[in-house]
Amino acid sequence: MDSQAILQVFLSGEFLPSNKASLHISDLAIQRGFGVFDFFKVEKQTPLFLDDYLERFYTSASLMYLPVPYQKEELKQIIEKLISLNNLDVSGVKMILTGGYSENGFDPAAPNLLIQQQPLTLPSADKVAKGISIITYEYLRDLPEVKSINYTTGIRLLHHMRERKAEEVLYYINGIVTEFPRCNFFIVTDNNTLVTPSRNILKGITRKNVLALAAKKYKVETRDITLNEVMQAKEAFLTSSTKRILPIVQVDGNLIGAGTPGPVTLELLQNLFALEEKVVAEVVR
Amino acid sequence: MDSQAILQVFLSGEFLPSNKASLHISDLAIQRGFGVFDFFKVEKQTPLFLDDYLERFYTSASLMYLPVPYQKEELKQIIEKLISLNNLDVSGVKMILTGGYSENGFDPAAPNLLIQQQPLTLPSADKVAKGISIITYEYLRDLPEVKSINYTTGIRLLHHMRERKAEEVLYYINGIVTEFPRCNFFIVTDNNTLVTPSRNILKGITRKNVLALAAKKYKVETRDITLNEVMQAKEAFLTSSTKRILPIVQVDGNLIGAGTPGPVTLELLQNLFALEEKVVAEVVR
Repeated sequence: MDSQAILQVFLSGEFLPSNKASLHISDLAIQRGFGVFDFFKVEKQTPLFLDDYLERFYTSASLMYLPVPYQKEELKQIIEKLISLNNLDVSGVKMILTGGYSENGFDPAAPNLLIQQQPLTLPSADKVAKGISIITYEYLRDLPEVKSINYTTGIRLLHHMRERKAEEVLYYINGIVTEFPRCNFFIVTDNNTLVTPSRNILKGITRKNVLALAAKKYKVETRDITLNEVMQAKEAFLTSSTKRILPIVQVDGNLIGAGTPGPVTLELLQNLFALEEKVVAEVVR
Repeated sequence: MDSQAILQVFLSGEFLPSNKASLHISDLAIQRGFGVFDFFKVEKQTPLFLDDYLERFYTSASLMYLPVPYQKEELKQIIEKLISLNNLDVSGVKMILTGGYSENGFDPAAPNLLIQQQPLTLPSADKVAKGISIITYEYLRDLPEVKSINYTTGIRLLHHMRERKAEEVLYYINGIVTEFPRCNFFIVTDNNTLVTPSRNILKGITRKNVLALAAKKYKVETRDITLNEVMQAKEAFLTSSTKRILPIVQVDGNLIGAGTPGPVTLELLQNLFALEEKVVAEVVR
């Protein structure tokens, strides 16, 4: 497909060019920021770990009392058709389910479902080789187990991050770290144990995959991690669908380990690459 | 104006019929629930306490790093024109400023400003005479001083409220009550002191007016109120632009005072009516 061509989106039951896709101002996302979403990666026309993402999407919707207007199998067919229409190489698919066209601007109506696909730029080899600096911020998301569209705090903090030359902000509450606005957090302890927070987080699909990969070789723990423990960690990294695994080398100005990406982190990233390739190969075959 | 006619809205620099008003799906309200708003009442073509509302709107926008695309005087003229086009009797005007059409679905762009006007139904005399039942819920809004569009929790709680036959939900944090999703909270103590929370709230314009009216006759305090103090209150009420003053007669199933609207509450409501009439009369004259 011509890279300049306009991508198709799926909105309110039909496929249409993305530049024609809009929601009426009465939609509850516009009126009240009310909606849920999910996002997965597509490689070689293959959605990666789609069942996991769909399950989480339906759970988020259910916890917000928003009925998804399609059964899972129908939704899969819509996604398949969208991927085939757009014919992109590496991309991300985002499903947004809003509170619908509300009559009074407050009460939810029949939800609007939007599915978009966009080309995806994965982190550069250079970024992986250098690792990133992060800052911390005390904040707990509303309903952390729901992937809601509410990023009021995450987006407002872009300014704080950039002022401090940080690339991500790690939330904590009462001294216990939780998650990033869009990623999960891991540390590697002195005795090579992988640890990731267990509560007040959105449970990432990449987090789940990394836990499984790590468990083959290392001890893994899902439990509370204090800010102090973060500073003492031998390695630290984040996980997300788009970023896979990114080494963290500095937290609030303190170096993590030697201040360079650690061997366990880089090994797990290789394992994750291999897992993704295997999944794509199995489906494509 | 014919009540069936389609109202005009102001969006992205132009007036258009509300049924034609939409935002492209890349808007950050749709993608990330990112935006601020404000809302004021219009009677006899007169916006009530407009300067207060505009000041709060600009403050909210500034705290979210969203530049309002108009100076206050220009915005007033746009509002005036909208009111004149729609020619409604009693109405509410809502201004929404979103994070704009974001290229990557996360970074804010030039904000979109939407101004809508809608007919307003004020609380019935019967509701005022009977008072309302409320429930409480532990929650603290992100940035309470900002009127953000994020109502994730407020809207999700509609289900809990309705199950418990309550009409509003009062937030508290660590045993200290704060505000409703869309209203402020007051109690009247045994010695006829008016008390309203001082922190972790959006400071309502009606709250401000009621404080000034009450101070003419009663002792007023802005300070922390515990949940326990609420249950012991002689009277309780909420304030909002659309609801003015509504008596609260039951909290979490406990009667407040005699379980009927109290004399101080009803007196203040009369004073507020009188104030609004005076303001309208002064402008219309």
